[in-house]
Amino acid sequence: MSHGDDGWRIRRTSADLDRLGETESVFTLANGWVGWRATLDEGEPCGMPGSYLNGFHEQHELIYPESGYAFPERSDTVISAPNAALIRLWVDDEPLDLRTGTIRRHHQELDLRAGVVRRETEWVSPGGRGVRIRSTRLVSLTRRPVAALDWTVEPLDEPVRLRVGADLLANQRVPERADDPRAASVIHDPLTGEIRRDDGLDGVLVHRTGRSRQRVAVAVAHRVEAADEVATDTELTADRFRLALSGPVRPGERIRVTRFAAHEYTGVDGTPAGELAELVVAEAATARDDGFDALLAEQRAALDAAWATADVELDGDPELQLAVRFSVFHLLQSGRADGDRTIPAKGLTGNGYDGHVLWDTEGYVLPVLTYLAPELARSALRWRHAHLPEARDRAAELRLTGATYPWRTLSGRECSGYWPAGSAGLHVNADIADAVLRYVATTGDTAFLAECGAEVLIETARLWHGYGHFDDDGAFHLTGVTGPDEYSALVDDNVFTNLMARRNLRGAADAVQDCPEVAARLGVDAAEVAGWRAAADAMSVPYDGKRGVHEQSAGFTAQPEWDFAGTGEDDYPLLLHFPYLELYRKQVVKQADLVLAMLRCPGDFTAEEKTRNVAYYQARTVRDSSLSASAQAILAAEVGHLDLAYDLFAETALQDLADLGDKTADGLHLASLAGAWLVVAQGFGGLRDDRGVLSFEPRLPGPIARLVFHLRRHGQRLRVTLTGRQARYELPDAGPGDAVELWHHGEQLRVTGDGPVTRPMPQVPDPGPEAQSPPGRRPQRRAQDTAGDD
Amino acid sequence: MSHGDDGWRIRRTSADLDRLGETESVFTLANGWVGWRATLDEGEPCGMPGSYLNGFHEQHELIYPESGYAFPERSDTVISAPNAALIRLWVDDEPLDLRTGTIRRHHQELDLRAGVVRRETEWVSPGGRGVRIRSTRLVSLTRRPVAALDWTVEPLDEPVRLRVGADLLANQRVPERADDPRAASVIHDPLTGEIRRDDGLDGVLVHRTGRSRQRVAVAVAHRVEAADEVATDTELTADRFRLALSGPVRPGERIRVTRFAAHEYTGVDGTPAGELAELVVAEAATARDDGFDALLAEQRAALDAAWATADVELDGDPELQLAVRFSVFHLLQSGRADGDRTIPAKGLTGNGYDGHVLWDTEGYVLPVLTYLAPELARSALRWRHAHLPEARDRAAELRLTGATYPWRTLSGRECSGYWPAGSAGLHVNADIADAVLRYVATTGDTAFLAECGAEVLIETARLWHGYGHFDDDGAFHLTGVTGPDEYSALVDDNVFTNLMARRNLRGAADAVQDCPEVAARLGVDAAEVAGWRAAADAMSVPYDGKRGVHEQSAGFTAQPEWDFAGTGEDDYPLLLHFPYLELYRKQVVKQADLVLAMLRCPGDFTAEEKTRNVAYYQARTVRDSSLSASAQAILAAEVGHLDLAYDLFAETALQDLADLGDKTADGLHLASLAGAWLVVAQGFGGLRDDRGVLSFEPRLPGPIARLVFHLRRHGQRLRVTLTGRQARYELPDAGPGDAVELWHHGEQLRVTGDGPVTRPMPQVPDPGPEAQSPPGRRPQRRAQDTAGDD
Repeated sequence: MSHGDDGWRIRRTSADLDRLGETESVFTLANGWVGWRATLDEGEPCGMPGSYLNGFHEQHELIYPESGYAFPERSDTVISAPNAALIRLWVDDEPLDLRTGTIRRHHQELDLRAGVVRRETEWVSPGGRGVRIRSTRLVSLTRRPVAALDWTVEPLDEPVRLRVGADLLANQRVPERADDPRAASVIHDPLTGEIRRDDGLDGVLVHRTGRSRQRVAVAVAHRVEAADEVATDTELTADRFRLALSGPVRPGERIRVTRFAAHEYTGVDGTPAGELAELVVAEAATARDDGFDALLAEQRAALDAAWATADVELDGDPELQLAVRFSVFHLLQSGRADGDRTIPAKGLTGNGYDGHVLWDTEGYVLPVLTYLAPELARSALRWRHAHLPEARDRAAELRLTGATYPWRTLSGRECSGYWPAGSAGLHVNADIADAVLRYVATTGDTAFLAECGAEVLIETARLWHGYGHFDDDGAFHLTGVTGPDEYSALVDDNVFTNLMARRNLRGAADAVQDCPEVAARLGVDAAEVAGWRAAADAMSVPYDGKRGVHEQSAGFTAQPEWDFAGTGEDDYPLLLHFPYLELYRKQVVKQADLVLAMLRCPGDFTAEEKTRNVAYYQARTVRDSSLSASAQAILAAEVGHLDLAYDLFAETALQDLADLGDKTADGLHLASLAGAWLVVAQGFGGLRDDRGVLSFEPRLPGPIARLVFHLRRHGQRLRVTLTGRQARYELPDAGPGDAVELWHHGEQLRVTGDGPVTRPMPQVPDPGPEAQSPPGRRPQRRAQDTAGDD
Repeated sequence: MSHGDDGWRIRRTSADLDRLGETESVFTLANGWVGWRATLDEGEPCGMPGSYLNGFHEQHELIYPESGYAFPERSDTVISAPNAALIRLWVDDEPLDLRTGTIRRHHQELDLRAGVVRRETEWVSPGGRGVRIRSTRLVSLTRRPVAALDWTVEPLDEPVRLRVGADLLANQRVPERADDPRAASVIHDPLTGEIRRDDGLDGVLVHRTGRSRQRVAVAVAHRVEAADEVATDTELTADRFRLALSGPVRPGERIRVTRFAAHEYTGVDGTPAGELAELVVAEAATARDDGFDALLAEQRAALDAAWATADVELDGDPELQLAVRFSVFHLLQSGRADGDRTIPAKGLTGNGYDGHVLWDTEGYVLPVLTYLAPELARSALRWRHAHLPEARDRAAELRLTGATYPWRTLSGRECSGYWPAGSAGLHVNADIADAVLRYVATTGDTAFLAECGAEVLIETARLWHGYGHFDDDGAFHLTGVTGPDEYSALVDDNVFTNLMARRNLRGAADAVQDCPEVAARLGVDAAEVAGWRAAADAMSVPYDGKRGVHEQSAGFTAQPEWDFAGTGEDDYPLLLHFPYLELYRKQVVKQADLVLAMLRCPGDFTAEEKTRNVAYYQARTVRDSSLSASAQAILAAEVGHLDLAYDLFAETALQDLADLGDKTADGLHLASLAGAWLVVAQGFGGLRDDRGVLSFEPRLPGPIARLVFHLRRHGQRLRVTLTGRQARYELPDAGPGDAVELWHHGEQLRVTGDGPVTRPMPQVPDPGPEAQSPPGRRPQRRAQDTAGDD
């Protein structure tokens, strides 16, 4: 990978053609509704084609060798809508295919400010005919259903006969993938055609799914520029509309196709097929009439507005500067503010994890979006609220109280096929509750609390209260759950789960006070609230007094240690080389769990406990999950291991750009992308929001000369500027009377529109020797002076 | 069900035709090699046809919604060999089918002394023609491959035209069963024909399986008696040989077909198809030449010899007298002494659990057979030894030391598709080791120890030593395992597992002394043995001092109690109505676990501990497994709750005869059948064999006036006769110098051929109020005087 000098462009060249799948994910354009993977315009070669619509999916049966009560019988899996991002080309009857002929020049570029992917290729066919292809594609951030592609071809040196097939293709073949539990379930030919139609240069396809009973329509409208000798036609088959052009083209001439696509889906019992076709035809035509330049201008304006809050300036490390912007860009384009829409773990960038929504959304993505684009967080939380009925049903099925959200889903129903690491991960409920509380505290959006949030808080609090029990000594326990660390399962009193459940219980109790009418509607009485508070107050938090550390879950620190000496480099990720039987019962941690608890519930640990816990768990955490490095970085920074924090930051920020987990082809890791911003704000900025109180304890690692980030608070945009010497807080857009209260290293500050408040950066106390990582598992050292030590 | 007055015959009539599947299981005849389910001769109606050969199976793929490392990818499932027990009949072209026409009389009878199933039916066709069918079938206990069927039909009142089709049928259709995790995987048409041939009245079919690569041959030879007007012919199709007879039959005449079938299978790379065909043809012909009466005589003689040791006389409860004999009969006909052959959980009586071998064999069946027919136990243990290579491979795959036997299998490879209740049940290894130790101690068969037993002990000891760990305080722990109770999983220090592993470790250490050459070959040195002994000595045995009871596993007694009050009668078995999430984390016990530990390792508990533990666990054990009642009965008897013991005894003994679990149609529960004898000997006889020491503490419940049972000890047959006043021990077959040492209620006795030793029965101390069962889950009261109390 090379990256543009200006810090806003990601570029790939012909040297990267052996990792097309990864590039397709990295260059995905999306608007939270439509996601176009960056497959080469000509379709082949490709890693995995995909044109996804938020929530559009098919179902498949889950078959178990030995089934059990309430094991889900169906799962959702994301499938591609008809793909409009396909322009095939034949040069003197030879197909453009970069695996053949000669590539003279090739690059693709993601422009984070323009919100487009540009591509330029000069290719000489095996028969010796040269052409130049240029294209620009966008998925409109301002027009929900619209994506567009502006494509030209011209001869390089001599006249050529060209044939262009601009396709809209349903049921595009998806390659089968390796036998890895994290891959997607492939369903072949999931779509059945209902309507296919052409009209002049334009076309529309309407298809439906079999089991999920959804109907999808995609229309394409075109502008074409070509010499008169170029013939234009359209073709229609069951799964394909093609705009076909063919004829001789001389040097200096070109063929230009500008395509405007519109995408919609609905339930089969929703909009009839004919109406849905009319709708997308009209949307595509409007875009075509407005023109590509108009779309470009809108895109730029929308991004300018977003970047005002979302941008991070990071002086001192251009690669990470770009990586953080890349990360935030993908978060911004994954969400939508309209309706009840959430953000799957891979956004709309791939079909990994079957395109499911997991706790990554509330646990990692929403904590970022709540600060940068709170309307996107609200929409995602409204989606959870909209699926409370399924969560209530699931709780009843599991014989539990209240509601329990699915571990993974698209439709709202549980789709986990391995319950010890699925349905047993009850913490997803507390993660959702926490995201609700953070959203409300950060935005002050009490209307949302009354309309949606309180109900979610109450029903999840009911889950915890019914699930747990008081022991003889009066402590409240949550047993038999699985916490964030997937190398443990079915444990008792997982500290993360317990602390988050406590927050959930208290948050619900507070919400009952704030929204008495919601509480009344749900039949909450004073005794029930008292029960929640009693459970929260008595919540068990296992602590190993002998070792002076918290136990990830009860008894964790008494478990046998992992044999790191006997574990080879090729044995990672451990889950592909060791049975759960071994992983679950030993002190080996896949991903931050107790460390994540210290991030989410910072007030429940003393500084000394944090330092000891970081040392203890850093030494046992192998980071086989991409969810881990960011939380570890943030806590390492908090306890003063800034070199370690910086290296973990790089690992988080480069997870997808450098494909560190070798899984980026399946889609981007949105939690890791979120982690990059979280390390900036929470790790180096020291941002915390414990119980809604905004605080900063900034500390910059050596390589970062200056760091700027922003966040929204109660409608204000707060700008934080950090250098080695000074922290500056300001409200660039504030009017008279606007103010934000915050804490800086224990000092309460009030920032207003009157000008920045500055404070000196405190000395970071010496934390002693760096917390050891497992042998061979320390993150790569980034700083030059220490490179090669490990 | 009615039962014969003489205590040796089970009889079913037309009133039982609505439970054909159950009857087919109960009346199954087998010889440890061939098992014929007692389907009606005419084939239809039927519950589930099946003609099983020990070890004959097909494989199928296991598909997981979310796979994991070392999850088995294939499973074995028992399939039927070509079925020779089929004689179809048409009466004036109307098929004999008991669902049509009129049944004048019908009964089937299992004769436990003759070892045959007799059947007699008088049926009038819808067209008004009456016939009488009589048949007797046997599966030869003396001729491994042979089964035979003697069948006659005669008109009742007037001449009829009869057509008889005596079939040998491959790929017989097997009905699909309900969605229950305990049912079998149905594979349709598993067999591919290789040879089909007829020769006079006889026929042979050779088929092969696809994946398991086995070849099966079944030949049928016949004797026919019929009037000259009856035409005889044979028909051959791909999957069927038929001996066809047809013609008019007058009152006083009959058609009699006596069929002799021979069954063999081998690997496809073993005996070629032609040779295998010749083999079974010859075996069937020999049986035919010897004649049915000869087979009957051999059968009777073989059973007479077996019953000499196996019979139990139980005066006072005719139903249970018969039930115990029925139980022992099935155990005897499930095993074979030749070669390396084991006994699946359902014997050869059905395809439930896919026909798999589970720990039921070593945990329940072999403890009986070791005393009654030790040669059958030896053969089953040799089978485990023969599959040590697969167990070593499995341990290596799981990254464990030594060997770990599969939780369920036919081929020797792990076939469990749900690892928390499968591969995590490591106790199966200790159960096998315990069965080895018991067999050697009971028989004195040191040759077996050197040849097979020591190696099994050593490799399983290596598993435990490598699996466990010493904690800071020096205790040895086995964590993350699943014990017998399947309503718990992945627990630490399961007392049953730990005590049995200790026995395994010590047994291996002793075997190293007894078999130094085996130890040398396996590279065992003194340090390794010392390690085993140290682990055994330091084995953790969790005890709750506050409640004064052992913890089933660490922390069990601190778990929340089950909400029995909120659990309805229809909620049982709980596993079909509650998720594992709830079951695993609560104090609800599916089946005896800690109680079983007290039975297996009686010396590790004081009498007071046993009394308290019985009370504690009786109250929490729901007996959703048929493995439970026998162990509970035995311990209830030991601590003095003789009424409870008797009722649990009845539940065990009637499990299949009364189809208490509604699963008998899938095959008999051999562990439950074994349990009936175990309650007699261990419960009422107080038999224990802790560390090889034979002891009795007899105590008779009120309804039993007299109880007689036998067992073999070092080649001697010991007869134990118990009445309310006296216990008598004698060696009926002993010669000069023969003697058996035993303990009676703490007094050491030496029994010789010189005559019986008698001792008075001691007073059973008052154990106080009966141990409470969970609400609604007390076993049915059997004694008249207390009936209706519950």
